[in-house]
Amino acid sequence: MNSTDRSDPTDWCEKKLRFIRLTVAYDGTDFCGFQFQPNRRTIQTALEDAIFRVTGETLRVVGAGRTDAGVHALAQVVSFSTRCVYEPQALRRALNSELPEDMVILEVADAPHGFEAINYALGKRYRYLIDDGAARDVFARRQAWRVWQRLNISLMNQAAQLLCGTHDFRSFQNAGSSRLKTVRTVRELIVERRPYGDHDRVVIEIEADGFLYNMVRNIVGTLVQVGKGKQPISWPAEVLAAQNRKIAGMCAPPHGLYLVKVYY
Amino acid sequence: MNSTDRSDPTDWCEKKLRFIRLTVAYDGTDFCGFQFQPNRRTIQTALEDAIFRVTGETLRVVGAGRTDAGVHALAQVVSFSTRCVYEPQALRRALNSELPEDMVILEVADAPHGFEAINYALGKRYRYLIDDGAARDVFARRQAWRVWQRLNISLMNQAAQLLCGTHDFRSFQNAGSSRLKTVRTVRELIVERRPYGDHDRVVIEIEADGFLYNMVRNIVGTLVQVGKGKQPISWPAEVLAAQNRKIAGMCAPPHGLYLVKVYY
Repeated sequence: MNSTDRSDPTDWCEKKLRFIRLTVAYDGTDFCGFQFQPNRRTIQTALEDAIFRVTGETLRVVGAGRTDAGVHALAQVVSFSTRCVYEPQALRRALNSELPEDMVILEVADAPHGFEAINYALGKRYRYLIDDGAARDVFARRQAWRVWQRLNISLMNQAAQLLCGTHDFRSFQNAGSSRLKTVRTVRELIVERRPYGDHDRVVIEIEADGFLYNMVRNIVGTLVQVGKGKQPISWPAEVLAAQNRKIAGMCAPPHGLYLVKVYY
Repeated sequence: MNSTDRSDPTDWCEKKLRFIRLTVAYDGTDFCGFQFQPNRRTIQTALEDAIFRVTGETLRVVGAGRTDAGVHALAQVVSFSTRCVYEPQALRRALNSELPEDMVILEVADAPHGFEAINYALGKRYRYLIDDGAARDVFARRQAWRVWQRLNISLMNQAAQLLCGTHDFRSFQNAGSSRLKTVRTVRELIVERRPYGDHDRVVIEIEADGFLYNMVRNIVGTLVQVGKGKQPISWPAEVLAAQNRKIAGMCAPPHGLYLVKVYY
């Protein structure tokens, strides 16, 4: 839209359908995941409820990643179309005032006509946090996976590099997925320690053009076996080559996982 | 005790009263403070319940700082006397297995005969965290005070220096205190920004030989007025000199406050 449209909101309101892109952060602890479920507290429902209270419109929003129950987001991208006439900044403030305290909209922007957060995404970046300190960090218990053994980050990082590139990742896909194509390109996969307040965390960051169901959590569970010294550096690559989910490590729990960025 | 004592646990058990010092971290969110209250979830009760389950002894523990409801601790010190014969490391593991997930014992040590955490303390250090980012950090909502205006840290730090030293701090004491002497020595008071994951926090650290009731939270509320530009740098010193609680800033909320260290 241009400034002429904005000068006549009534006309605009009746004629123009806007496509909106939201950038949303949430603490996934108390949500049953992103996607709508009847009588459950989900991210989608919370956003749609807030939009209804602000615009009066009953609509469906689309998320770039349908995060599972307990999974967090630093910058999830959500799209919807609306006939409301709010400026983006005013819409952000209005929606934020209607959202619960464990969610916040970081940005509202007008998007190209037809924009849909999931179909337009060219890639995503996830982060996984692990608390492997000598004593458990009571402040991290909903935000990082507690592992009772100090992990060898160097081994994990070397193993991780063998998963980078274009591969068939079906060994790291959980059952229950509808994805027929299982080839993905992992652009980056790094394992490092970063300070978080008085503690440090093992941080695993992974960026790919797309992800299979539970792919990040299965990769993390597999790399942790290397970090504990229970499997050699070459093992994740062997799991990948086997194309068999059953030999991979455990699926790491959801509360350590964060959707960090969606690329368009 | 020496190694001879440890070689004969039965004899020791019957004859020796040990004084134990615990270092404890907790997320204060879901506790009604440190001190025992009937039918309430308190730190003291949780520790005493765990000690009972491990040793069979019904006893009272003493904390160095009786933190209020919602206040956290990174290293609270707690003392008690016992006739149990566990080695400190074994006692730590046993107690931790009995504690809820929002508490953890970091250290168990034998203490000098007669040791009491509160009376032996020579000073304490507190930290206060403020989230003043452009968007609220959903992961900090129970761990930092959300302030909707970017604070000027330099002004706050300059004002803070005027509170260092030995003064009568009654202007920063809330009603309901039993403390008759209101002179304390603030050894250090610093205001700075520190990274916490992807965000930063305003961190106010204060160390003193002792604290009046709600003294830290009242100082924080007063410094924030300076950080917002609503009061001049000289104002906290004026509040101090007035010896009148009514003119100080608001009492900052409990969930940003951490007991960081107790000095002996």
